Amino acid sequence: MVKLMVLYGKPEDASAFDTYYAGTHVPLVEKIPQLTRFEHGKSLGAPDGGEAPYYYVAELAFDDAETLQAALASPEGQAAAADLENFASGGVTMFVTRA
Amino acid sequence: MVKLMVLYGKPEDASAFDTYYAGTHVPLVEKIPQLTRFEHGKSLGAPDGGEAPYYYVAELAFDDAETLQAALASPEGQAAAADLENFASGGVTMFVTRA
Repeated sequence: MVKLMVLYGKPEDASAFDTYYAGTHVPLVEKIPQLTRFEHGKSLGAPDGGEAPYYYVAELAFDDAETLQAALASPEGQAAAADLENFASGGVTMFVTRA
Repeated sequence: MVKLMVLYGKPEDASAFDTYYAGTHVPLVEKIPQLTRFEHGKSLGAPDGGEAPYYYVAELAFDDAETLQAALASPEGQAAAADLENFASGGVTMFVTRA
């Protein structure tokens, strides 16, 4: 299994981010082919009670790296990626991990 | 479910990190009480082929935030946390997310 990790920086308007993410971005991600697991949620802070470096985290799991690349290159993958600019005002950090 | 995200920066000696992580740190993490899922793996890079900002990622899942806090405060949680200084030479970023 490989996972695309998506780490969102703190947006300018957190409430707008939350509404857009749940109502528009999630349905786009769920259309990506070969997606085997999609987990996403808000950061609750550092374990010692401090502030977390990211506002929101999403993970998209696929069977292997080739499937992930094909999924991101698909029209649905491209649509989800293009949607980032509509709400990710705090920046976004993406990378792939093996798990 | 909540997850403790552990993002490791690039270590000084990647081979030493890998050996220590698999042989010593994993067994310590697996002893942490109430851990419901433990996934960990090496970063494969950014989705566009660029370098990833982290070398290795681990996720420790627990039923809820209270259970996570109790688990980290347990002797086993403290032992795993204290072990970080033995191998995390590239730094470590930790935060909790809801999923």
